[in-house]
Amino acid sequence: MRSSRFAAMLAGLALVTLLLVRTAGTQPGTPVDLVLWGGTVVTMDERRTVLPVGAVAVHDGRVVAVGEADAILEAYQGAERVDTRGHIVMPGLVNTHTHAPMVLFRGMADDLALMDWLNGYIFPAERLAVSPDMVRIGTRLAALEMIESGTTTFADMYYFEDDIAEVTREAGLRAVLGQSVIEFPVADAPSPADGLARAEAFITAWRDDPLVTPAVAPHSAYTLDGRMLVAARELASRHQVPLLIHLAETEEEARIVREAHGTTPTRYLDGLGIWAGRSLAAHGVHLDEDDIALLAERGVGVAHNPESNMKLASGIAAVPSWIEAGMVAGLGTDGAASNNDLDMFEAMRFAALLHKVATRDPRAMPAGLVLELATRRGAEALGLADRIGSLEPGRQADLIVVSVEGARQTPMFDAVSHLVYVTHGDDVRHVVVDGRFLMRDRQVLTLPRDAVLRDARAMAERIRLAVARGPESGAGGEER
Amino acid sequence: MRSSRFAAMLAGLALVTLLLVRTAGTQPGTPVDLVLWGGTVVTMDERRTVLPVGAVAVHDGRVVAVGEADAILEAYQGAERVDTRGHIVMPGLVNTHTHAPMVLFRGMADDLALMDWLNGYIFPAERLAVSPDMVRIGTRLAALEMIESGTTTFADMYYFEDDIAEVTREAGLRAVLGQSVIEFPVADAPSPADGLARAEAFITAWRDDPLVTPAVAPHSAYTLDGRMLVAARELASRHQVPLLIHLAETEEEARIVREAHGTTPTRYLDGLGIWAGRSLAAHGVHLDEDDIALLAERGVGVAHNPESNMKLASGIAAVPSWIEAGMVAGLGTDGAASNNDLDMFEAMRFAALLHKVATRDPRAMPAGLVLELATRRGAEALGLADRIGSLEPGRQADLIVVSVEGARQTPMFDAVSHLVYVTHGDDVRHVVVDGRFLMRDRQVLTLPRDAVLRDARAMAERIRLAVARGPESGAGGEER
Repeated sequence: MRSSRFAAMLAGLALVTLLLVRTAGTQPGTPVDLVLWGGTVVTMDERRTVLPVGAVAVHDGRVVAVGEADAILEAYQGAERVDTRGHIVMPGLVNTHTHAPMVLFRGMADDLALMDWLNGYIFPAERLAVSPDMVRIGTRLAALEMIESGTTTFADMYYFEDDIAEVTREAGLRAVLGQSVIEFPVADAPSPADGLARAEAFITAWRDDPLVTPAVAPHSAYTLDGRMLVAARELASRHQVPLLIHLAETEEEARIVREAHGTTPTRYLDGLGIWAGRSLAAHGVHLDEDDIALLAERGVGVAHNPESNMKLASGIAAVPSWIEAGMVAGLGTDGAASNNDLDMFEAMRFAALLHKVATRDPRAMPAGLVLELATRRGAEALGLADRIGSLEPGRQADLIVVSVEGARQTPMFDAVSHLVYVTHGDDVRHVVVDGRFLMRDRQVLTLPRDAVLRDARAMAERIRLAVARGPESGAGGEER
Repeated sequence: MRSSRFAAMLAGLALVTLLLVRTAGTQPGTPVDLVLWGGTVVTMDERRTVLPVGAVAVHDGRVVAVGEADAILEAYQGAERVDTRGHIVMPGLVNTHTHAPMVLFRGMADDLALMDWLNGYIFPAERLAVSPDMVRIGTRLAALEMIESGTTTFADMYYFEDDIAEVTREAGLRAVLGQSVIEFPVADAPSPADGLARAEAFITAWRDDPLVTPAVAPHSAYTLDGRMLVAARELASRHQVPLLIHLAETEEEARIVREAHGTTPTRYLDGLGIWAGRSLAAHGVHLDEDDIALLAERGVGVAHNPESNMKLASGIAAVPSWIEAGMVAGLGTDGAASNNDLDMFEAMRFAALLHKVATRDPRAMPAGLVLELATRRGAEALGLADRIGSLEPGRQADLIVVSVEGARQTPMFDAVSHLVYVTHGDDVRHVVVDGRFLMRDRQVLTLPRDAVLRDARAMAERIRLAVARGPESGAGGEER
């Protein structure tokens, strides 16, 4: 009994040796763009295959083979060979919910009651500061941080989403980008109808992009009226793009919807037909059993954001019940204003630990499941399950190489455990999206790091002064 | 209202400028060993003074002055000057509860029910593997990890504590080291009486060490009988050293003690007189209000270990109530078998977020309080409040220099927020204990890094094989 886990591990290794000759039919020395060899390959395929000494062959932006290092090195002649010994090679992380430019509000205000935080800082900062310039500077910083911490795909909801798309293209990241639609006037739209028109133009402009999936993002059930929610769904369906929305984040939201519509946000939106098509809902903190069953039945992707839900004291989403019910769940960081970073390794660690203590069951949310949320399940939540989320022949080559040689990672009994319980974004060494290196030896190749940081600091200072002055005073100073 | 926080910040800066000329009476250019200048100095003094462009002068192992960079640079001539611009200079972190050698069990077994984890892995591993050699190899690895992540003082409870002390001296860390006493036979003592004798010899040998405070560590109320608990207290009092103990970690512990003694572990131990002298209790997950009041009254230091309590699903300690009651609280990582690392920055982040969601109050455990737990309050819990825990003239020079220049840390509105919400152990650049550099530019100077990692990997492999084989079989193989 005691040693059954180790025995299973050994048996697994033997099985892998037998099964993973995925190179059948290939001539020895087939030329490919890239071979990463020698590391532990955590494939995140359906069997969660782990190759202790593995290799991945990449060609034309796709994974062409995954297997034991010796076999792959014999079968494929890489134009470039990358030694990944001492590292884990795995699918890039999928962040299913963020607001990229909000990195500029990181740590601006913490430890406040939700309404003081929103009304005292976040809403004023957004009223005063959000512009195409701010959005670009913020998204560049966010992209830098995401690349440096191993995220290769993110889902975003913000304003000026076309500017976010252009920076995403510059950075080389993959993304599902939702143009926000909200009831009150915002920086890029005086009305929700204008927001919808902006979303349609954005979707039309970006619908054929290989990396960016444009989307519409009605903010939530309580910040848009039913007519606009329905119009957003129609827009998404007409263009066959995802609809992104906040759902059941706070008790306050649930109360408002119950008072207005006599049911839960989930069922109210279902009644409007919002879930009739690819949908991604963020948070789901306050879902009842029927909501969970309904979202599972409708195939709605739901993004769990443990750090944001904890920091804002929103509550604890019943993620183990989601999984039990067959819901399509992913993991997210939310915006950096409430996290305060975009590190998906941190999000994994919080997800793994939070639900153990919340359910009083240390077996809840085991490491392998958490890693699925951050990779293949997250990809499924975004509607990208056929393209990313695992290292398998035919998938896009979105992958990261992660060091496990540090003191904090020594010894290593189990690669998956280490990825969830001790790895930091800082350990990511190389990042590849669509076969292209975005980061190599911790040097981001697609963005000018120093300029990105300098611009972000300057913009943050402008935001700080604007919030300190307040909206009424143009010249500032009354507080000094 | 909106800008009151920023106004307070500005007012704070002005105050600091006026108050922090702690250099009065010093001749310009007084020679000292070391001046760290230019960084943001987070002093963690009683006023939580933060100097945006500060400096710290160190001589003979102590802090001699803290102030604005210009004033300190004029007043003190450092034999060495260290430019800390772009960094935070702060007290070294205090880990109030760990079992250092258990880093060798890191990730050996996760996501299991507590009894399966203990009986299937931890206890067998300890039965089969704990030896002076294992303890030294494990403690070297733990020391390397602690130094690399900014911990300068730790409290330990394990076996062969004299070996741990020697490695601690080699590493240059400060520590309170508790020799374990437990009812059943363990690697270094066939009986608790032997354990006590070993503890006394250890205390006698190390009592005058400048960095190591020896202590006795009766394991807990449920793993030692009353006579031995009392004997441990008498030993501690006789030698005027701390007593370290696990307290109210699990519901099971509370139940066992209630059935045997009709009260809570806290009050049972109080009845035995255990708290009559410097005591440090780990966990306190299951304390009632009377327990909390009692521990506060007795001045018992209590170590909060959020990650371990979450991962093992032990429960959520009522830390905000501890603080309210005036309890002397610190923060800890617990052993790496249940964490899985010794990174105090992670422990801070979990403490800050966990209690917000647990109390449904985002104002709970604000960053400044959490940082106190990891520094000055932790020092107080260890009985070292007069020597460490803040950067103030006369304190020992235990300090760390932390980079805040990364993408993940940009922009920075508030240094204290950043230390709790976005900083990683990896950001620590220099570590100084007693005025001596233990790490400089991320190179640990006191331990041979490669050899430490190599020895740890080899020892872990021996442990893995021993646990897989089980105790009955000398040759192994029955599971294959």
